[in-house]
Amino acid sequence: MIKKFLTTEVMSVFFILGTTVSFAADTLSESEVKYAKILRDKALKSDLAYSILESLTTEVGPRMAGTPGDERGVIWAEKKFKELGFDKVYKEPVTFDRWTRGIEQAEIISPFPQNIMITALGNSIGTGEEGIRAPIVHFETFDDLTKAEAGDVKGKIVFISYKMGKTRDGSDYGKAVQARSKGASVAGEKGAKAIVIRSIGTDSDRLPHTGNMNYLENVPKIPAAAMSNPDADLLLNMLKRGSVELGLKMTSSPGKPYTSYNVIGEIKGSEKPEEVIVIGGHLDSWDLGTGAVDDGAGVAITMAAAKLIAEGKRPKRTIRVVLWAAEEIGLIGARAYAKAHKDEIKQHITGAESDFGAGPIWSFDWSSTNEEEPIVDQLADILKPLGVEKGKAKATGGPDLWPLRALGMSTFSLRQDGTDYFDLHHTANDTLDKVDPIHLAQNVAVYTVFAYSVAQVDGDFGFDNKY
Amino acid sequence: MIKKFLTTEVMSVFFILGTTVSFAADTLSESEVKYAKILRDKALKSDLAYSILESLTTEVGPRMAGTPGDERGVIWAEKKFKELGFDKVYKEPVTFDRWTRGIEQAEIISPFPQNIMITALGNSIGTGEEGIRAPIVHFETFDDLTKAEAGDVKGKIVFISYKMGKTRDGSDYGKAVQARSKGASVAGEKGAKAIVIRSIGTDSDRLPHTGNMNYLENVPKIPAAAMSNPDADLLLNMLKRGSVELGLKMTSSPGKPYTSYNVIGEIKGSEKPEEVIVIGGHLDSWDLGTGAVDDGAGVAITMAAAKLIAEGKRPKRTIRVVLWAAEEIGLIGARAYAKAHKDEIKQHITGAESDFGAGPIWSFDWSSTNEEEPIVDQLADILKPLGVEKGKAKATGGPDLWPLRALGMSTFSLRQDGTDYFDLHHTANDTLDKVDPIHLAQNVAVYTVFAYSVAQVDGDFGFDNKY
Repeated sequence: MIKKFLTTEVMSVFFILGTTVSFAADTLSESEVKYAKILRDKALKSDLAYSILESLTTEVGPRMAGTPGDERGVIWAEKKFKELGFDKVYKEPVTFDRWTRGIEQAEIISPFPQNIMITALGNSIGTGEEGIRAPIVHFETFDDLTKAEAGDVKGKIVFISYKMGKTRDGSDYGKAVQARSKGASVAGEKGAKAIVIRSIGTDSDRLPHTGNMNYLENVPKIPAAAMSNPDADLLLNMLKRGSVELGLKMTSSPGKPYTSYNVIGEIKGSEKPEEVIVIGGHLDSWDLGTGAVDDGAGVAITMAAAKLIAEGKRPKRTIRVVLWAAEEIGLIGARAYAKAHKDEIKQHITGAESDFGAGPIWSFDWSSTNEEEPIVDQLADILKPLGVEKGKAKATGGPDLWPLRALGMSTFSLRQDGTDYFDLHHTANDTLDKVDPIHLAQNVAVYTVFAYSVAQVDGDFGFDNKY
Repeated sequence: MIKKFLTTEVMSVFFILGTTVSFAADTLSESEVKYAKILRDKALKSDLAYSILESLTTEVGPRMAGTPGDERGVIWAEKKFKELGFDKVYKEPVTFDRWTRGIEQAEIISPFPQNIMITALGNSIGTGEEGIRAPIVHFETFDDLTKAEAGDVKGKIVFISYKMGKTRDGSDYGKAVQARSKGASVAGEKGAKAIVIRSIGTDSDRLPHTGNMNYLENVPKIPAAAMSNPDADLLLNMLKRGSVELGLKMTSSPGKPYTSYNVIGEIKGSEKPEEVIVIGGHLDSWDLGTGAVDDGAGVAITMAAAKLIAEGKRPKRTIRVVLWAAEEIGLIGARAYAKAHKDEIKQHITGAESDFGAGPIWSFDWSSTNEEEPIVDQLADILKPLGVEKGKAKATGGPDLWPLRALGMSTFSLRQDGTDYFDLHHTANDTLDKVDPIHLAQNVAVYTVFAYSVAQVDGDFGFDNKY
């Protein structure tokens, strides 16, 4: 999952909330409810998602946008959809500038020489082979940096030490991540030589968290990196004793344009095949781990849910599983999809993306002006035995649905417990062993119920004509 | 803490158990017991050990034997003893061959290319700049490797996948660590090109565990490394699908002799200053972390305990805090100390080393032929409020006391809860944030009571004249 500079297009999502029309959806018949419950219980016993995830992490592993792993991921996804018997499997091009990581090293030069563990932030420029050496200027928060005098920052390496708080909904990410996404431009504008932030993560492992950053136009570009939480603690202890000089070497660099693909598999609807329910996750990952949690889990959960539905009676609408490309570097695949499909936006009935790890789903939100919708209550009733509560009329659908949401499409948010998500997020520790197969199956059960129900029920989930 | 090929000298420790004579120790007077309790409660409230540990990890950090960190550690220790007001501070030379780590890289070449996280084992030779590429031959245990036919191993890279079990007393370490300490020689003898084991650790972090290994004489030397637990899991998943080729590059190498030091601080006894109680930890660490848990904690606990005792009435005997050099590479400092002091061995009344992390002490053992010793019951009574149980007559005293124990010296084992110890042991994750200040203070309280009591009480704790 990314959060970054929000473009106008994406920001508009937040402003249209409240203008969405209410559901025209009918409710499920008694037999449809009964069938949804059968699907739910079947999914809960299935290990299909875990087996898909084991396959992706073992046979592909890291798949950062523009790398050989990305290419292998696309081939894997097409093959897997076909193996699972999806009715239609295809891919759509997504073009972006690739970025390469290169070497990344940092050391405290004085007063107490030690190496520290850093990783370059995605999109960062390098330092050059000769590296950078400069004193550290410390800010507790991104806000403090914005308020700093340029004279205090010029010629130094900025260190922001804010530690992200741990919550079920990841609610502190928005505050914490500013240091990563915008810190380099703010520091660069004030004349800093580089920025090295405390990782945006809630763990205490010696593994730094990468993630995307962006440069503002007309501001000097400076290298940007993150250090692990224990290294940030160490640096703070040194700074208590006086000034600290840091050495930094990064050979990261942007590269030439690269074309990857959104990979799509469909389970064709029995009555209204042209109407689609969009579920999915993003196929790309960062390069440090094997992308099991971010977002192999989303890929596996949604592929498995559609496959389990396909094994039984086809619902009326088509279920389209979209595995988005290049999410981590700025929702590039999601934007390409929205652009390619904008003329069919009204056939995109509703959808949900799974992109918050592999923790159990504990609540679901919908997008409507109404806090009461009969189909929502029906869903809540079917999902209750899975430990899922009825949430609120405030869904945004997951990052890769934002561009579609901005075009007026309805979304649901099937909300996962993300308490441990930011322990692993964008680190080398994002590996298969972190995924609990029981939690993964619970996710599949929820997606199965959701996708079947919204594909089956007559009427729609609201559409905002303004967009 | 190390475990390695046990030499005859050290092995003898195990054989003399049972021949140790019984205690001639008196018991503490009522007022001495009262005073020990005052010391205990004072230590429990003190943050001195944490502040020493913060100083060591911040101002020195990693201090692998023979590195600049080792040298800085010696300077730090002398300075810290003096700052704390120890009566006598000195150092004794310890000479060994230094080893350097160099580059360490591994990648799965086929069938599914991925980098894996490895670290060279201490003392391992390198692969040469050109690296090694070979198919993997997998064994579940070290025993399986020993039973293998040379024909199945020759020309391959051996992978041992045994995962160490997690227990309070670290009891599975002995079984697991054979792969690390002896695997290279067994594999080398059968013609393997290299060995890469699953880390000897109980975590699931993407951080490999280093640790010492040794080559048997007259056996071909091959490079030896450990991979992180998640990487071992990944490799097993690949091996289920067929053969796997690994590429390995390590530039580790042995080097020239280096002289470090055991650093010693004494609190002089008031009546029998020539008789010493030995407590301490080892000053060296591995290079990947800052050596907070292994063994900065032991250094800090024992320095703080002696200092807290020194602030009050001096006990009759001298308390000698020994910070041993080069423990991790084979108890080199401990052997040097035993050799230098063998003529004064009878003045070494008893002792205990802290080298099992920073978990709370839950039990204590002593070395005697008797399960009942009145002074032991007294100690148990004083320590009970700290959650410490009376253990058994089977102490070995901690690794750096083994050579002294082999000469006949009595020891105690103040046993720490090591449940999480092997999560961090010898990894980059061995950092200050892993230490709980409350647990650390509990350790200091136990060491304070122990050192004061055995320094104060008349009579001795047994000595085996045979040695």
